[in-house]
Amino acid sequence: MIKFCAVLLFLVTQSLAAPYKPPNSCGYDSCNLGKPDKLNVHIVPHTHDDVGWLKTVDQYYYGSRREICKPGVQYILDSVIAALVDNPDRRFIYVEMAFFWRWWNQQTEDMHNTVKQLVNEGRLEFISGGWSMHDEAATHYNSIIDQHTLGAEFLHDQFGDCARPKIGWQIDPFGHSREVASLFAQMGFDGLFFGRIDFQDRVKRIETRTLEMIWKGSANLDRQSWLFTGVLPTGYGAPPTFCYDMMCSDPPIIDDENVEDYNIPERVAAFLVAANVEAEIYTTNHVIMTMGSDFQNQNAYMNFKNLDKLIHYVNLQQANGSNVNVFYSTPSCYLYALNKAEKEWTTKTDDFFPYASVPFAYWTGYFTSRPALKRYERYANNILQVIRQLDGFSQNNQRNITFVLSEAMGLAQHHDAVSGTEKQHVANDYAQRLSEGIDRSMEVINDAYAKLLPKEGQTTSIPHQFLCSYSNISECLPIEGQKQFTLTLWNPTIHPVTIYPRVPVTQQYLIRDPVGNLISAEYLPIPDTTKNIPGRTSTAQYQHIFQASLPALGYNTYYFEAKTNTKEFEHKKVTTTQNQACILQNQHLRVVFDDQGDLQTIVNLEKNLTVSFTHQGLYWYTSFPGYKELPEIHASGAYVFQPFFSTAVPVSARRSINCTKTDTVQKASIVFNEWASQEISLFNGSLQIELEWTVGPIPVDDNIGKEIIILYDTNIESGSTYYTDANGREVLQRIRDYRPTWHYVVDEPVSGNYYPINSRIWIRDHDRQLTILTDRSEGGGSMRDGSIEIMLHRRILHDDGFGVGEPLNETAYGKGLVVTGKHILLVDRPEDSALLHRVGAQQFFMQPLATYSLPNTSSYTNYSNTYLQSWSALSDAMPLNVHLLTFEQLSPKQYLVRVEHYFELNEDKTYSQAATIDLQMLFKSIGTIGAMNELILTANLPVSELHRLDWMTKDQESSHADMFHQNSLNATIINLNPMQIRTFQITIV
Amino acid sequence: MIKFCAVLLFLVTQSLAAPYKPPNSCGYDSCNLGKPDKLNVHIVPHTHDDVGWLKTVDQYYYGSRREICKPGVQYILDSVIAALVDNPDRRFIYVEMAFFWRWWNQQTEDMHNTVKQLVNEGRLEFISGGWSMHDEAATHYNSIIDQHTLGAEFLHDQFGDCARPKIGWQIDPFGHSREVASLFAQMGFDGLFFGRIDFQDRVKRIETRTLEMIWKGSANLDRQSWLFTGVLPTGYGAPPTFCYDMMCSDPPIIDDENVEDYNIPERVAAFLVAANVEAEIYTTNHVIMTMGSDFQNQNAYMNFKNLDKLIHYVNLQQANGSNVNVFYSTPSCYLYALNKAEKEWTTKTDDFFPYASVPFAYWTGYFTSRPALKRYERYANNILQVIRQLDGFSQNNQRNITFVLSEAMGLAQHHDAVSGTEKQHVANDYAQRLSEGIDRSMEVINDAYAKLLPKEGQTTSIPHQFLCSYSNISECLPIEGQKQFTLTLWNPTIHPVTIYPRVPVTQQYLIRDPVGNLISAEYLPIPDTTKNIPGRTSTAQYQHIFQASLPALGYNTYYFEAKTNTKEFEHKKVTTTQNQACILQNQHLRVVFDDQGDLQTIVNLEKNLTVSFTHQGLYWYTSFPGYKELPEIHASGAYVFQPFFSTAVPVSARRSINCTKTDTVQKASIVFNEWASQEISLFNGSLQIELEWTVGPIPVDDNIGKEIIILYDTNIESGSTYYTDANGREVLQRIRDYRPTWHYVVDEPVSGNYYPINSRIWIRDHDRQLTILTDRSEGGGSMRDGSIEIMLHRRILHDDGFGVGEPLNETAYGKGLVVTGKHILLVDRPEDSALLHRVGAQQFFMQPLATYSLPNTSSYTNYSNTYLQSWSALSDAMPLNVHLLTFEQLSPKQYLVRVEHYFELNEDKTYSQAATIDLQMLFKSIGTIGAMNELILTANLPVSELHRLDWMTKDQESSHADMFHQNSLNATIINLNPMQIRTFQITIV
Repeated sequence: MIKFCAVLLFLVTQSLAAPYKPPNSCGYDSCNLGKPDKLNVHIVPHTHDDVGWLKTVDQYYYGSRREICKPGVQYILDSVIAALVDNPDRRFIYVEMAFFWRWWNQQTEDMHNTVKQLVNEGRLEFISGGWSMHDEAATHYNSIIDQHTLGAEFLHDQFGDCARPKIGWQIDPFGHSREVASLFAQMGFDGLFFGRIDFQDRVKRIETRTLEMIWKGSANLDRQSWLFTGVLPTGYGAPPTFCYDMMCSDPPIIDDENVEDYNIPERVAAFLVAANVEAEIYTTNHVIMTMGSDFQNQNAYMNFKNLDKLIHYVNLQQANGSNVNVFYSTPSCYLYALNKAEKEWTTKTDDFFPYASVPFAYWTGYFTSRPALKRYERYANNILQVIRQLDGFSQNNQRNITFVLSEAMGLAQHHDAVSGTEKQHVANDYAQRLSEGIDRSMEVINDAYAKLLPKEGQTTSIPHQFLCSYSNISECLPIEGQKQFTLTLWNPTIHPVTIYPRVPVTQQYLIRDPVGNLISAEYLPIPDTTKNIPGRTSTAQYQHIFQASLPALGYNTYYFEAKTNTKEFEHKKVTTTQNQACILQNQHLRVVFDDQGDLQTIVNLEKNLTVSFTHQGLYWYTSFPGYKELPEIHASGAYVFQPFFSTAVPVSARRSINCTKTDTVQKASIVFNEWASQEISLFNGSLQIELEWTVGPIPVDDNIGKEIIILYDTNIESGSTYYTDANGREVLQRIRDYRPTWHYVVDEPVSGNYYPINSRIWIRDHDRQLTILTDRSEGGGSMRDGSIEIMLHRRILHDDGFGVGEPLNETAYGKGLVVTGKHILLVDRPEDSALLHRVGAQQFFMQPLATYSLPNTSSYTNYSNTYLQSWSALSDAMPLNVHLLTFEQLSPKQYLVRVEHYFELNEDKTYSQAATIDLQMLFKSIGTIGAMNELILTANLPVSELHRLDWMTKDQESSHADMFHQNSLNATIINLNPMQIRTFQITIV
Repeated sequence: MIKFCAVLLFLVTQSLAAPYKPPNSCGYDSCNLGKPDKLNVHIVPHTHDDVGWLKTVDQYYYGSRREICKPGVQYILDSVIAALVDNPDRRFIYVEMAFFWRWWNQQTEDMHNTVKQLVNEGRLEFISGGWSMHDEAATHYNSIIDQHTLGAEFLHDQFGDCARPKIGWQIDPFGHSREVASLFAQMGFDGLFFGRIDFQDRVKRIETRTLEMIWKGSANLDRQSWLFTGVLPTGYGAPPTFCYDMMCSDPPIIDDENVEDYNIPERVAAFLVAANVEAEIYTTNHVIMTMGSDFQNQNAYMNFKNLDKLIHYVNLQQANGSNVNVFYSTPSCYLYALNKAEKEWTTKTDDFFPYASVPFAYWTGYFTSRPALKRYERYANNILQVIRQLDGFSQNNQRNITFVLSEAMGLAQHHDAVSGTEKQHVANDYAQRLSEGIDRSMEVINDAYAKLLPKEGQTTSIPHQFLCSYSNISECLPIEGQKQFTLTLWNPTIHPVTIYPRVPVTQQYLIRDPVGNLISAEYLPIPDTTKNIPGRTSTAQYQHIFQASLPALGYNTYYFEAKTNTKEFEHKKVTTTQNQACILQNQHLRVVFDDQGDLQTIVNLEKNLTVSFTHQGLYWYTSFPGYKELPEIHASGAYVFQPFFSTAVPVSARRSINCTKTDTVQKASIVFNEWASQEISLFNGSLQIELEWTVGPIPVDDNIGKEIIILYDTNIESGSTYYTDANGREVLQRIRDYRPTWHYVVDEPVSGNYYPINSRIWIRDHDRQLTILTDRSEGGGSMRDGSIEIMLHRRILHDDGFGVGEPLNETAYGKGLVVTGKHILLVDRPEDSALLHRVGAQQFFMQPLATYSLPNTSSYTNYSNTYLQSWSALSDAMPLNVHLLTFEQLSPKQYLVRVEHYFELNEDKTYSQAATIDLQMLFKSIGTIGAMNELILTANLPVSELHRLDWMTKDQESSHADMFHQNSLNATIINLNPMQIRTFQITIV
């Protein structure tokens, strides 16, 4: 472990205060801008290194498991650096910091200096610079920002500003999110390039020469979010016949005239054609040629040797009147050349979802693929944010430990990680890494609570805090049979929350709240649908459910003491019905079921709104298995959702319904069949309806792959319009069978209407809005007026032929994987819904972290004398529309803080207004803010030093924005406009 | 062409006089000899680069035709040099000069200096150093020596003595010839390593720990021919699981303990096992591990990076008591360590033919595969030797031109070239290169004759000399219809010869000999079997045949003048019979056929010896096509001869016979069917019977591959013994179904008894010997007592699964290829046969070169006034047992001369005695020998400076020999013992 910690030191020993400032000519100044009278071809040597896909990130790094595929990234970096050293004309870009960091840690100081020189001279350029090239459909903005910050910090610490990535490079992700464009703009990027675009969209843009545009990344942030965006000409590979990688079969340059296969005239002619073809579809006298692809340049000398010759011989033709000038370049230099061209560009305000690579192949399956991994990634992030807070408020400065989970989360954002499009053993590896990161987090949690829990003057060690990682299947073995235990809940939001913890137990307990009062808790059977989940080993048959109101940004501890005297047993009123009509109702909502278990209506009592349901429940699509005779129609698979029939059918003809009512909760358990159920809960006082679904093992004995959706068919007059969020943030309007920027020829009526749902989807009419919040990324849409469908789980027996090479057939314990999850249903007026879903989604995303302990004190009194049972970092209420996105100790006196306004413009009368907060309030328990340095989103540059390139739209709008120069009211009080995120490095005195 | 000539300059501007002498530590002094108390593992990084196989040599060099296979040798050398520079511990060997020369010519002076330093420090070592890794079964010693000399000269000129190869490295050839061992010893090599050995032999040698031995390479040359020989442990690849090449799938070294797949303990343990397993089968505390294979190290940094780590971690275990010490080494350093071990070694006196890689897979098909290429290679060599002589005697110093053919011949010696085991397009490339070399040779020939032909004082230009390349199919278009033309015949031997030229003509000519006398020439129809060969476009229906007696090492010109007056037509006596019994007879021999066309007897009239034939003619084997059910039994293919049935069947049930008798020649034309015939000729005064065979197109309409043999079944009581030559030189005894060094389990009764026939095969009994000389390499043997069979041609419809991936199915003009060839049959007493076959074979191999011209003089008188019609370099007779092997001008005053005694000990009463010649006799026309420097066989070191390692046999014989220090009688008079070759660099004053 010594070794491991040593290599992580850079993360904690460097600071932004004294960046490495070399004498250099990097950045745009190092760019070759070509010749004004020529067609300038920017040759961009690169490699696309998936941080896991067919192999794990380390298998790719080392190049092991060669029977799967050959690549080893260590060799790419070894040989690229050597090739760059050999010839100063050469350029290379590198993207994925997860790999570069692995490599960097194994290099000598000499090599470090060599690489620094290459960077400082612009010969090696870091592009995008995230830990991975993140997915855009299944990722949450919190983690996108984190993984880019992780890479940016590494680059800044090791290389200084020369290495600051200036553009986004999302060449491979399968569809592109507008929110990503907005975030990239806020990261200070001057542009974005990608390779994959819907085939219909590409045709339209080629015809109209609009493959390059200004993307307006936010409906709220105006020009601060605008981003120049370019669709690359040939995906991200070399133009046909010009790939010189060892994995390619294109002809090398043979320039000895005496050799039989001498090919200079033919190769040069072909290149001139390729260049001029590109010039036909773009608008300036600059074109870009990406020379690289997946894991290319393992033997970079080979690639460069041929490119050197190609460039030489093509340019020689200028003497014969050729119009083509070709040279090594980088994407940012190409971008800079476009900027210098002073053109006007079309704009775009929607996004690039969904993505069909070819007809009938809509890459919308991965919105849901591997739902357990998608949830686990959210869970891990929840822990990551909590441990950063705990570390920060305890001032333990343990970034070397939090790094383990940060790194795992960085990997998990990869477009073949949380996307679910990797091989099974690779998915296991991502989960394993998250799990190890969580395990390491326990050190942070315990070290933090060791400071936060003891009452003043108490130096006793705290009882060891542990997670109950299997509480999702109502299992917590360490507390089973214990006489007493504690449950401590850390609320990571800056607002008080009320939650309903469920604690699986083998006996009944007395539960005391932080002030010692006995809590009126329910003691309810754990449902059979949970108990039957394969792998559950707990003997707990019951669960305690109670209401817990937690302080903002702090914790409460609940003390559990086994009831020894049967008299102590509280016989609370529980009513249950079986297969009878039932109504769940609290102060705000009424949920009506008929005796068949069908959801009939949800009524918002206060607003007197009723939503009627025609169908609600679990349905399945038959996965299209592919036809041998029609290989051009892809099967449903990890990427592609391709239903055989365009209608989903119910998972069962009948269902059973059990209703249970207590003071705390009323719930309807609906079992469709042995592998599909849903439980709908209404808690006392709540404005939310919770729906927990359990799906699996999906049967495939019939050799039919199945894709399970949940359907909410209502009488809301939504027409063809529905709304989905982008990466958990802004919401985009969707219209069935329609694309905003081209005449959409509908080739796939279902999957072509699927969009990513990262946090919410809604439909509405004039009076009513049904909003559904999700606990992870899922795919879904509205196939009929008034309907919402969300895909929950997929078990498929064929591969879709896009590379992963495995059917998406997850198993556990020898059976199909069982997955559970939760939706939150909100029914309100449209104008009142934002408050519900903004606050609800944020709390759903950033849940209180439950840790347990077995106190070595023998009684509650002892415990309460020793430990603080409630603590909050805040003393004053914070504005409800502000979220604490990041709170992290960088070094003993340095903190990184991100705060955000998380309402959009005009969606709530009150909370869509600007907010003001005093950051000092966050540091009440730590100290006094001495200095505040506002940084760009990735925290690698003061906003004052950011100067993005300006662009002009066809509508004569300049993209110029003084993005970040808002005045603070005073030193620590700041303003936040709707959807604004602000990032600060804060120094405590 | 400027470029091409420029890069060849090194060949003519450098000389041996002033070799580059760097301050260096190369050679054995640079060797790591390990630790005396450890098992020392010599890691030998290498690459095996076929100079053509699946791709042509240039396709391999550039790495083009990547759809066939990926390798590009340029990248191997690029990256190996870079990897060596990176770490001085690393070692690499390079073998094939054809590739290295290509690469070297493209490098900068800086790179030249870098490589020179690596060579001088022993980090890059040239091993074997031939132009190619030559085949051992189908090559002639003349060309083996030439191709090694070509590589050796390049290395000497560029690098000096540090680059002198010290060992033979025949890792891939498919069987090993004793003559090669002898030649290698004479090249100054200290040892030989190879990878392929018969599987039964390997087992025996493993059991007896005799994989390393002293091979006694010659039955005549004693210790001068002894060569330490080692069979490598794992073919020539890495031990299983330790291949780190990009083409391999073995696990890389993963040495980060934090990585899931960390594998140091497992890898180290596996390596220790592998090392100790090797130690079990060898006899010293040194073992060798070859780390490389076909075209490996294209990305050498990858290979070395892992090997660096492997070595590091394995040696770390010494601290824990491991007995293994591992380090980078070279084969010569390993050899040196063995030498230092001062062991005693077993000896071997036979050879390593035939080679069966696995049961039933005898690699004896390639002895015959591609018979046309095999003949063309001999033809090209004949021309090469002639043009060197012509260039030398004309003192034109045109090595830059002769190099083209030398290079093509160097390539053609490759073990996938003349062997016939390459893909068709590659075979075409070899032939194309030979053809281009021959085309370039015409410049040398014309420039030489421009000096040699004109009479003194005549400055007129000579008429352009040209070849009739298609005279093998009786076609010479340029002379068709000409009124006059000349035929000049250069005799490259140092003895006068009598030959019977055949000139295809469209009309009858008067022919004058060099003194102006009209020759009595025959005018005979060209046989239909020749005229019907596809591709023949000549309209010539007749051929002139006449006797020509040529001076030693010189030429005669014959003047042809069209007969214009019909009276001039000579009506010579020609008798023909059809399908009748006939007898061919001259002063020495009688050849008897019955009326069925069957050869009955050959009678040696002088010696009163009769050999009767029971069967003679063309037969075929059915090629085994492979069974899907039995993939372990390989099909017959380019490498393997695997007959389906062990009996060959006649190509026809009947045959026709036409006999023609003239004063000059008597011949029997026997036609078996439309694709198989033989013509047996007996020339006036000749001691030889010529048999010309024509085979093809072999029919395969029946989907059966066929392998055609010629059978000579006699009543000679030969028992199971027969004799075949090795590479055209010494002859080895063969015994049917027997191996001299192990108990041979006969798994294949036919192909397991096939041996290479490079020049001759014989059987004999007490009184009679039937010797058959061949015009190219063929395979054959004696399957029954008294029988000789020789395979002539093969047309096969399946691949044998050993890599070439194509059936050996040669076609031309849309049909199976037609091939013609010649055997010379000698019948004499055994004790008298050597004189016949030694002299006959040498003349057969080194035939006079016929060039034609169309003189611009109008009459013979004009011509004879202007040009010398006869010339000889010699004025005195040379001993009949001496052959001029090499005569080549190196620079204006420098010549390279090789002379050899070409009789073996005790095979002829007279000519098996030592011979004495005066080299000055060769230079009569050039000047006076000023200095003679005797060199080793490859002409890259004075014999006086050669100090080979000494070895001790188990019989207590030391290999020490003062090999080359024989006293000359005086300055230019030298002795030659039987089978001795001596090489001299001669300076003319």
